[in-house]
Amino acid sequence: MFNKVLIANRGEIAVRIIRACQEMGIATVAVYSEVDRYALHVELADEAVCIGPAHASDSYLNQQQLLSAAVLTGAEAIHPGFGFLSENSTFAAMCQDCQIAFIGPKHETIELMGNKINARKTMIDAGVPVIPGSDGKIATLAEAKQIAETIGYPLMIKAAAGGGGKGIRKVLNQEELTSQFQSAQQEALSAFGNDDMYIEKIIYPARHIEVQILGDQCGTIIHLGERDCSLQRHNQKVLETAPAIDLPEEARTDICQSAVMAANAVHYENAGTIEFLVDEHDNFYFMEMNTRIQVEHPVTEMITGVDIVKKQIEIAYGMPLMLSQSDILVEGFSVECRINAEDPSFNFAPVPGRLTHLHLPSGGMGLRVESAMYSGCDISPYYDSMVAKIITHGKTKLEAFSKMQRALSELRVEEIVTNKQFQLDLIANQSVLDGHYDTSFLEEKFLPQWFD
Amino acid sequence: MFNKVLIANRGEIAVRIIRACQEMGIATVAVYSEVDRYALHVELADEAVCIGPAHASDSYLNQQQLLSAAVLTGAEAIHPGFGFLSENSTFAAMCQDCQIAFIGPKHETIELMGNKINARKTMIDAGVPVIPGSDGKIATLAEAKQIAETIGYPLMIKAAAGGGGKGIRKVLNQEELTSQFQSAQQEALSAFGNDDMYIEKIIYPARHIEVQILGDQCGTIIHLGERDCSLQRHNQKVLETAPAIDLPEEARTDICQSAVMAANAVHYENAGTIEFLVDEHDNFYFMEMNTRIQVEHPVTEMITGVDIVKKQIEIAYGMPLMLSQSDILVEGFSVECRINAEDPSFNFAPVPGRLTHLHLPSGGMGLRVESAMYSGCDISPYYDSMVAKIITHGKTKLEAFSKMQRALSELRVEEIVTNKQFQLDLIANQSVLDGHYDTSFLEEKFLPQWFD
Repeated sequence: MFNKVLIANRGEIAVRIIRACQEMGIATVAVYSEVDRYALHVELADEAVCIGPAHASDSYLNQQQLLSAAVLTGAEAIHPGFGFLSENSTFAAMCQDCQIAFIGPKHETIELMGNKINARKTMIDAGVPVIPGSDGKIATLAEAKQIAETIGYPLMIKAAAGGGGKGIRKVLNQEELTSQFQSAQQEALSAFGNDDMYIEKIIYPARHIEVQILGDQCGTIIHLGERDCSLQRHNQKVLETAPAIDLPEEARTDICQSAVMAANAVHYENAGTIEFLVDEHDNFYFMEMNTRIQVEHPVTEMITGVDIVKKQIEIAYGMPLMLSQSDILVEGFSVECRINAEDPSFNFAPVPGRLTHLHLPSGGMGLRVESAMYSGCDISPYYDSMVAKIITHGKTKLEAFSKMQRALSELRVEEIVTNKQFQLDLIANQSVLDGHYDTSFLEEKFLPQWFD
Repeated sequence: MFNKVLIANRGEIAVRIIRACQEMGIATVAVYSEVDRYALHVELADEAVCIGPAHASDSYLNQQQLLSAAVLTGAEAIHPGFGFLSENSTFAAMCQDCQIAFIGPKHETIELMGNKINARKTMIDAGVPVIPGSDGKIATLAEAKQIAETIGYPLMIKAAAGGGGKGIRKVLNQEELTSQFQSAQQEALSAFGNDDMYIEKIIYPARHIEVQILGDQCGTIIHLGERDCSLQRHNQKVLETAPAIDLPEEARTDICQSAVMAANAVHYENAGTIEFLVDEHDNFYFMEMNTRIQVEHPVTEMITGVDIVKKQIEIAYGMPLMLSQSDILVEGFSVECRINAEDPSFNFAPVPGRLTHLHLPSGGMGLRVESAMYSGCDISPYYDSMVAKIITHGKTKLEAFSKMQRALSELRVEEIVTNKQFQLDLIANQSVLDGHYDTSFLEEKFLPQWFD
């Protein structure tokens, strides 16, 4: 096994990875920006290297600094976590050049799946259902009009290199098409240096269902079941469940099989997620592949008993999965609530500051808390506002939700405003308990009532 | 289900019970002594009643005050936790008289098992192996001599009403018998108001193996497998595992079956534990029955998935177990380390005081922490010095121990001295990992080397 791993990340995912390494007997190197000197991931790691100023572009995104830190400390592998450089194929390739294992898929896979037009093409070839739309890059506005007429309005114009909601436009009718196409293209060019565009039909209403995949270097690929991540606000997931509630067994099976087909099509290695949109009739469509660990991975771990982060490390080292699909038995139900330092009454604006007293819920069965906070720490304005992920697991859905109710009630985060009460109200909502929601539910139905 | 439960206890077990009630939708009443006003169990409960001054005899052992609190708050049941009044048959009977459900076995069962001579007799009649010794109460010194000659020296003289190490003497030879018998008898009379004595052979070396039992009011009795609690210091358990390491399968089966026979013999209701001594040849002997929840119950919960505290409440309400023996599948391995505010270098003397900063380990899979502490709380000199129970669960023994190593390393308890380093060293010991220990191991082998 690796002797030493560098974690190219911060916050709860860095802590999560360090803990996994410790349990595997692997020494850890944390990296930190100047404002993160007293962060928990720095405290827990065996070694820590400062990699630059607070702005992520100067530190957590600074590829040379990260690689230097790895070389200097003798780290044999780098775990990128999520966000930052986790889906940067250049960085993955640079790791390879430096003979440092990148704990993630091959850089070619990251690059292929990072270009949404190529990803679509690959999925079409593999027989995975994709959202109706253009076959590839749209060369001209005239071509865009022609495709729009075929698939009908409303539709989405998207940038091939897209991400973070940039270079993406909703088009309601033909009148809007010209202006929206051009503005999206310009935005894409300035954000990604690539103005390749494509068109997709809008699937609405739809649920966001995703499938966790594990693949090893020997070609074994399995899925760990699906998660429902439809409860979103501004495209940010708020609460996730595994399995999805109220998804017919047949659809579940088909979606998971398609995810394995998708992963097989690119000879996927390591942990990844295939995201689908599922319409009212349980038709499903490939949306994108996330070539990294995800924030919501714990709900899958709770229902399968598979430690996904440890598997990532083992796979990157070259170990076989030692699991076949029939070994994966889904047991019970798991839910995750993301607790953020944000003020719901100010449109969920982040509220960084000093966390004077933190009491995380603990104890009992089926409760897990992932957090990088401690009493007296600072929540930095430079990064995301995550305080903790609360994850519960029960034999039944209701048991998992009742544990969550208990856990959230117990949480104390002083003197920082959080979305705790919002989450408490969300899990008390009958539609949430019944799984009767789509990706618009939170913003269009729940929030307007909640603010009333 | 009960609408409201009063928890007649404090510390981590009170918190554990409150959390279980919250998850079941049951309102909770905490009770507290004057020094426990800011204790976590008071903070977490829906209501809290002060029941007297710090000394337990004035508060947590004050039966009238507890029952008044229950009546005044409209609690329908009382959970006694462990220690304090949990094995007090008078209190259990008083609850019944007040039409308040006592969450534990019937008071007759507590009384029967509380008298060790009667318990022995009951087990002999039920065909459960007991430690060779006297059949019942020893009337005279002459009778004691006669029995001693039959079973041989060394032997133990014990008080029928025994507990807390009082009224108990080790006798090495016939010369010591007279003086030890008389002194034990006098001590028993002053401690318990009962000087009935009995004799038992000393089983040495022996392991302390105990079996968790659940019985409902319909007569269903099952076991949840065994725990090994041999690692003790001054008869206090320090580290427990489930299952026992290195116990032959046949012995395991026989011990668990005997435990069910023992419970059946007294028509046992609610959660209980049958404690056995197991000698080098895996012969086992009934030691005693604990008619309550135990400190180490979480390790059993982790390997069986059964929430014992919730089952206790359901059983007391009259619900059937809804589990048969074949439903109980032992999965993986669990270990618990007790973290106490005590100073190993001063003979493990308790060190009460202000806990200025607490960071409990969390995150990852298979970790559970039971604690009633928080940053800024006080550890009172009036009660036990428990800071936290750290419990881990893994697919294998080594996985569980590696998680424990990680969890203990992460624990921060400032500025209080604890036995954390002692526990870290204990779990790194090869004999501990191999299960090669008996009840004398910690004091006679491990500690002398550790102090060197």
